[in-house]
Amino acid sequence: MACCGRCFCCQCCCREGETRTPEELTILGEIPDEEQILPRKDYESLDYDRCISEPYVEVLEGMDNKKAKKYEAVHWMMVFAIGVTVGLLGLFVDFFVRLFNKLKFTVVGDSIEKCSDKGCLSLSLLELLAFNMTFVFIASVLVLIEPVAAGSGIPEIKSYLNGVKIPGIVRLRTFLCKAAGVLFSVAGGLFVGKEGPMIHSGAIVGAGLPQFQSITFRKIKFDFPYFRSDRDKRDFVSAGAAAGVAAAFGAPIGGTLFSLEEGSSFWNQALTWKVLFCSMSATFTLNFFRSGINFSKWGSFQLPGLLNFGEFKCPDGDKNCHLWTAVDLAFFVLMGVVGGLLGALFNCMNKNLAKYRIRHIHPKAKFIRVLESLLVTMVTTIVIFAASMLGECRDLSTPTAHNTTLAGSEDINSTIRQFFCSNKTYNDMATLFFNPQEAAIHQLFHQDGTFSPVTLSVFFFLYFLLACWTYGVSVPSGLFVPSLLCGAAFGRLVANVLKVKLGMDIYSGTFALIGAAAFLGGVVRMTISLTVILIESTNEITYGLPIMITLMVAKWTGDFFNKGIYDIHIQLRGVPLLEWETEVEMDRLTASDIMETNLTYVYPHTRVQSLVSILRTTVYHAFPVVTENRQNERDFMKGNILISNNIHFKKSSVVSRAGEQRRRCQSMKSYPSSELRNVCDEQSAAVEPSEEGEDLLQQMLERRHAPYPNLYPDQSPSEEWTMEERFRPLTFHGLILRSQLVNLLIRGVCYAENQSSTNQPRLSYAEMTEDYPRYPDIHDLDLTLLSPRMIVDVTPYMNPCPYTVSPNARISQVFNLFRTMGLRHLPVVNAVGEIVGIITRHNLTHEFLMAKLRQHYITI
Amino acid sequence: MACCGRCFCCQCCCREGETRTPEELTILGEIPDEEQILPRKDYESLDYDRCISEPYVEVLEGMDNKKAKKYEAVHWMMVFAIGVTVGLLGLFVDFFVRLFNKLKFTVVGDSIEKCSDKGCLSLSLLELLAFNMTFVFIASVLVLIEPVAAGSGIPEIKSYLNGVKIPGIVRLRTFLCKAAGVLFSVAGGLFVGKEGPMIHSGAIVGAGLPQFQSITFRKIKFDFPYFRSDRDKRDFVSAGAAAGVAAAFGAPIGGTLFSLEEGSSFWNQALTWKVLFCSMSATFTLNFFRSGINFSKWGSFQLPGLLNFGEFKCPDGDKNCHLWTAVDLAFFVLMGVVGGLLGALFNCMNKNLAKYRIRHIHPKAKFIRVLESLLVTMVTTIVIFAASMLGECRDLSTPTAHNTTLAGSEDINSTIRQFFCSNKTYNDMATLFFNPQEAAIHQLFHQDGTFSPVTLSVFFFLYFLLACWTYGVSVPSGLFVPSLLCGAAFGRLVANVLKVKLGMDIYSGTFALIGAAAFLGGVVRMTISLTVILIESTNEITYGLPIMITLMVAKWTGDFFNKGIYDIHIQLRGVPLLEWETEVEMDRLTASDIMETNLTYVYPHTRVQSLVSILRTTVYHAFPVVTENRQNERDFMKGNILISNNIHFKKSSVVSRAGEQRRRCQSMKSYPSSELRNVCDEQSAAVEPSEEGEDLLQQMLERRHAPYPNLYPDQSPSEEWTMEERFRPLTFHGLILRSQLVNLLIRGVCYAENQSSTNQPRLSYAEMTEDYPRYPDIHDLDLTLLSPRMIVDVTPYMNPCPYTVSPNARISQVFNLFRTMGLRHLPVVNAVGEIVGIITRHNLTHEFLMAKLRQHYITI
Repeated sequence: MACCGRCFCCQCCCREGETRTPEELTILGEIPDEEQILPRKDYESLDYDRCISEPYVEVLEGMDNKKAKKYEAVHWMMVFAIGVTVGLLGLFVDFFVRLFNKLKFTVVGDSIEKCSDKGCLSLSLLELLAFNMTFVFIASVLVLIEPVAAGSGIPEIKSYLNGVKIPGIVRLRTFLCKAAGVLFSVAGGLFVGKEGPMIHSGAIVGAGLPQFQSITFRKIKFDFPYFRSDRDKRDFVSAGAAAGVAAAFGAPIGGTLFSLEEGSSFWNQALTWKVLFCSMSATFTLNFFRSGINFSKWGSFQLPGLLNFGEFKCPDGDKNCHLWTAVDLAFFVLMGVVGGLLGALFNCMNKNLAKYRIRHIHPKAKFIRVLESLLVTMVTTIVIFAASMLGECRDLSTPTAHNTTLAGSEDINSTIRQFFCSNKTYNDMATLFFNPQEAAIHQLFHQDGTFSPVTLSVFFFLYFLLACWTYGVSVPSGLFVPSLLCGAAFGRLVANVLKVKLGMDIYSGTFALIGAAAFLGGVVRMTISLTVILIESTNEITYGLPIMITLMVAKWTGDFFNKGIYDIHIQLRGVPLLEWETEVEMDRLTASDIMETNLTYVYPHTRVQSLVSILRTTVYHAFPVVTENRQNERDFMKGNILISNNIHFKKSSVVSRAGEQRRRCQSMKSYPSSELRNVCDEQSAAVEPSEEGEDLLQQMLERRHAPYPNLYPDQSPSEEWTMEERFRPLTFHGLILRSQLVNLLIRGVCYAENQSSTNQPRLSYAEMTEDYPRYPDIHDLDLTLLSPRMIVDVTPYMNPCPYTVSPNARISQVFNLFRTMGLRHLPVVNAVGEIVGIITRHNLTHEFLMAKLRQHYITI
Repeated sequence: MACCGRCFCCQCCCREGETRTPEELTILGEIPDEEQILPRKDYESLDYDRCISEPYVEVLEGMDNKKAKKYEAVHWMMVFAIGVTVGLLGLFVDFFVRLFNKLKFTVVGDSIEKCSDKGCLSLSLLELLAFNMTFVFIASVLVLIEPVAAGSGIPEIKSYLNGVKIPGIVRLRTFLCKAAGVLFSVAGGLFVGKEGPMIHSGAIVGAGLPQFQSITFRKIKFDFPYFRSDRDKRDFVSAGAAAGVAAAFGAPIGGTLFSLEEGSSFWNQALTWKVLFCSMSATFTLNFFRSGINFSKWGSFQLPGLLNFGEFKCPDGDKNCHLWTAVDLAFFVLMGVVGGLLGALFNCMNKNLAKYRIRHIHPKAKFIRVLESLLVTMVTTIVIFAASMLGECRDLSTPTAHNTTLAGSEDINSTIRQFFCSNKTYNDMATLFFNPQEAAIHQLFHQDGTFSPVTLSVFFFLYFLLACWTYGVSVPSGLFVPSLLCGAAFGRLVANVLKVKLGMDIYSGTFALIGAAAFLGGVVRMTISLTVILIESTNEITYGLPIMITLMVAKWTGDFFNKGIYDIHIQLRGVPLLEWETEVEMDRLTASDIMETNLTYVYPHTRVQSLVSILRTTVYHAFPVVTENRQNERDFMKGNILISNNIHFKKSSVVSRAGEQRRRCQSMKSYPSSELRNVCDEQSAAVEPSEEGEDLLQQMLERRHAPYPNLYPDQSPSEEWTMEERFRPLTFHGLILRSQLVNLLIRGVCYAENQSSTNQPRLSYAEMTEDYPRYPDIHDLDLTLLSPRMIVDVTPYMNPCPYTVSPNARISQVFNLFRTMGLRHLPVVNAVGEIVGIITRHNLTHEFLMAKLRQHYITI
């Protein structure tokens, strides 16, 4: 790009490509070394800024306080509906997972009890394998139907809330596959959790419910035109994701903070209040029904979330028992360090595995993925079974009083496993492996009986490896519960060593909890929301400080080595995620250093043929609306519409087209699709302009189905133009989106040359947004309906006053504006109102900024 | 203002003042009717946007990653230090309040026990009066020293975090008076809480600690130049306020959300994480020391906050007991409605009282305020004493098992009062009145014994009236605890009716808690943070939904009648607070409708005499730096410094001065100070320009001590200028603050006419911010040191790229940008880069926008 500013022909640019420095290659989005995966340019941004065009203003004019209140009421109702739906979803998932698990463990458990005497254990193993592989097969097939349903979904939701459109993640089909798939992947005994998929499902509910339509089932379409913008949708997705967390962990506040931490950079009190309400609705809907069903006590609220840690409590009367003391904090810090290291190791291994999968499994036939899932299931099942046989028999402590009153959780001793052990003892390994993971976590947190250090170590080691292998297999799979369980084993191990070997007076459950927090924190690197989620799950505010310190230390330690697992997976997909803030150093750059200078302009009044050409030959999603000379500007600003007599119009359209063709070509160079690159090469080869005639439309119609035909081989720029004139920037008046332009063309919004622009048909706001979220493509346009000589007045539909920045603005200013306001395109406008560039998400990713910074240092 | 755009002389403007419509008057900040108090124009805004001038860029250039890390580490340490300090402060307050209370209640209690037999009760009353009046007298005198220390401090902190500078609120003297005063006002038996003052004190710690200097003690000044900007200070104040909440309620998450809800509109993950850490530090510092001191068990953590609600728990073994059920929710909604109504009544009464105080008490001698405090104390004491004698004797329930294990709270039966009652019974009224308020709340929440409905009604009624009277008396006084206690009595009353009269199976404590939440919510109208604070204070996550619903209903009900008490007091002070968002309707207005069009410009190179004149004769805090013609602009943008030869310079300075004089005059018209208005009148009377000579400086020096002398009676505009030229806008290049200009002048940053501007001395960032937060005034400038003919190049020190908006931008866009980015001045720049106005906080207050909207409707 920098080179293209200096040389003026396309060939030159293509040739120089070979001599580019690594930095330039990096900036252009090409991959210098195989290892580093850079943000891809083919992700679209979501658009959170309101486009205040004339149709929107009309809506505003019609909006009085009464209507606004009604709208607000609908908003609240929607939020409530989302919360209740997510709560019911949680109930559904919980019910079936329990059902499947009960079925499986009862059948297999009975068989083992029987066979441990008879010696037919291999039969039991086969039974277990049959169960697990059937379940996982179903889950895997569901994911084949909708590949986006694989994994935890948190990276996708994080990307969405960050402002990146990832195709398919909020569709009904994804929802069905994810919600059904997670039942089977959890029931299939894989080391996966249901929390991540719950959050993703919640987000889809949030995105879908207020739209009242679906792509999957096209018939489901009501006439409900509210909330048809990325901005409104984002708010509902935030609420839905928060409700998902709330239902999964019984943590409404944590859910709200999760949404804020992962998504919004704009703290809006009203929205946050709604999100909290949505989370509360989800938690208490779930609580109400679960309490009602499980205890037949309708109306009481005793089972907050799907994952609940039970009550940490000293035995009554023991005045010397403390959950934790100041001395323990030192151990917690150490455990945080170890958790961070383990988490970093986990992430590193998983990253390499994911890379391997991308390279060797994803390109192959899809059923290979199913086979991989089945392989993982088989190995997991065999490990579970084999390890259970190796467990030690430990004495069962007498059930203490408080265990029987554990509100809302099953009696801790109902989930112990006595496999191969005599009465009054239990098999510690089997208790951990041969139970649902939640029960195992409960055991580690609350079982007064001891687990042998060997068992805990073996369990930790096996679990660590298998969980790491499992995350990334193509089934819906959360990571929270496996990480918690793995970390709890580590924590319990530490507690055992301290208590038994060193004789310290500690509360084992606290150490198990802190271990869980440390490992989970080391893996996911979440801060505020995770702290609050864990506090809420334990329902013990006094754990605030130790959990927070542990998470902080784990995050710092882990960040020393790599990123959090979600960020790693986001990066592997090449999603151009925006960080929280820029580094201080980056303020050495200004907006002009990072902006995209190859722009394609649109004039306030443009011919249909020009628009079609621009839309067909560029890949930009927004076009600045500009005027060219002072007189035009003055007229335009005074409200005298720019008179587009033919000559005038023609000239300006030539100016733009001349530059555009070059730019278009360059833009395609940097665009990673090989198809486009061919077009570009072809075009630069045929650089001699062919004859322009009146039969252009005919040509255009003929070539309709060619991907990017060379429709307008432009005139070369006139000789009398100076260099400055050719490249001088133009006065900026507004921004119009590709989707808006296509919409205008499809609906025939234009006027004839001999008419005034007031004759142009007017579109309402509802018509402009009718096709949200999937606007038609320019190739869907039926050109026979349009005369190419007609003129489109784009000014009523453009965004006349987007936020802009000065070319001298520092990166931190640009970044804050862009991220906080949720922008998609940020025009860079100089002191005299000329547009000199546009900044998009891709210009603000960490990788791009770092490359630019290196370049900056080299230049100095 | 609108009229001044149309007429071109000052007199015209003054004359037309009498015929102004109420709307125009409202816009001008004049008060049309006595009742409505409008935002005052003399509050300064804080400046949260970074000024990226050359000195700042120098700092940036010197900032590598290592330094940035160091800076970050200092930041964390500061945050930790703030937390610990606030925790210790809480300990200090708690210790002394307890000491004073213990002393008082022991002495007086003993006396009553003795006297109820002997009949010397009037002696006991006198003892109590002596105690209370002495304490309150001390508190009142402390507030006389620093009047800002009165009240709860939450309105002030809310204003500060909103971005309004209120003089003195974060000073060390305020801190000392507030922290010491609250001890005595609480110990003095007034119906006030210590939570509000704790939050205010915390905020001052946050503001002061990282500055390492103080105005009160000028000698305390270290060489520590970090964090010298409004932006950094705001972050620390947020952290400090959050720590205050955390210490007061043992609610670190609630504290963090409080800071976010009241302050930041920009959700910054890193900052939020620091604020949470600060809150945690405060809670656990307090917890550590209190647990250590009270139980002599150092290292355990059992007493989270100053206000703690104790444990809500069903008796062990009672399987049918629920804290609340779905049926109860209906009652909670009703209680929310009643709480909202009561809160609205409370606010209405208190507002009228506050108005009365402003009108009749504040103008009088200061000791009147002390007398008022003493009067309130006397009445309160007598009421307490008299009511205690009227209480009923109720049966004492046998202490149940769980009461004895109440972790961290005193045994519930240790605070009952048996005054005038036989053994095994207690005096219910005395138990509520004759205890510290926290103990009374505990009684209402946890006492299994009953309170008679009559007692509860009388208590509620008396307490309501007295608390309402007390809030606003000039002592440090929080509102949380009185509201909670008042509401708890109401809730307990409902519980009594339901349980005893209707025989329902409910948990009384929950109803008391919900009553407390309803009333508190009705008074303060906080949402998210209050929900979380109450959940954390009860340490019972299952109360989330009922508390939230109650608060929501209470807020909606209350908002139907008036604003929250804090907002009312903010409004009474005329603070120009920005709401959360604008109403939908306001989007009918654009930036050009609301901007201030009377601007005073500065040229990139300006003579010292012009600057002094501008600074002395205007009240603006920022000046746009502009150039006038295209050639200049081009030179300026290309980096060729605008050559300020004498003629050129003179002309431009005349242009600006000509317009400025008029504008200045107009601006003073709308400025509410009568002193300024006189100057303006004087000036408009002497509108004929006097002779301008070389002895101007001499004149200037002579008039140095006159407030706003008419220094430069300008030339009339030349005849050849067209109307358009006189008033045409100018190309905008940056913004420079008054403080920066004064700083440049004081430090002699200028160059002689025959030199180039490169000879101008350069100031470093440290020099620019050395005087933060109190920059010298222009009147402190010693003009003898400066030659008036010298030229100042302001370009290195101006903010070259502030955020700007287009004149067509809608209010919601403008408002979001302004509020989110924490701006102070927002230039409105048109499509060709000319500045047409400036928007400040005053242009965005609800009142101003409403007035403009009315005007808009009239125009249509």
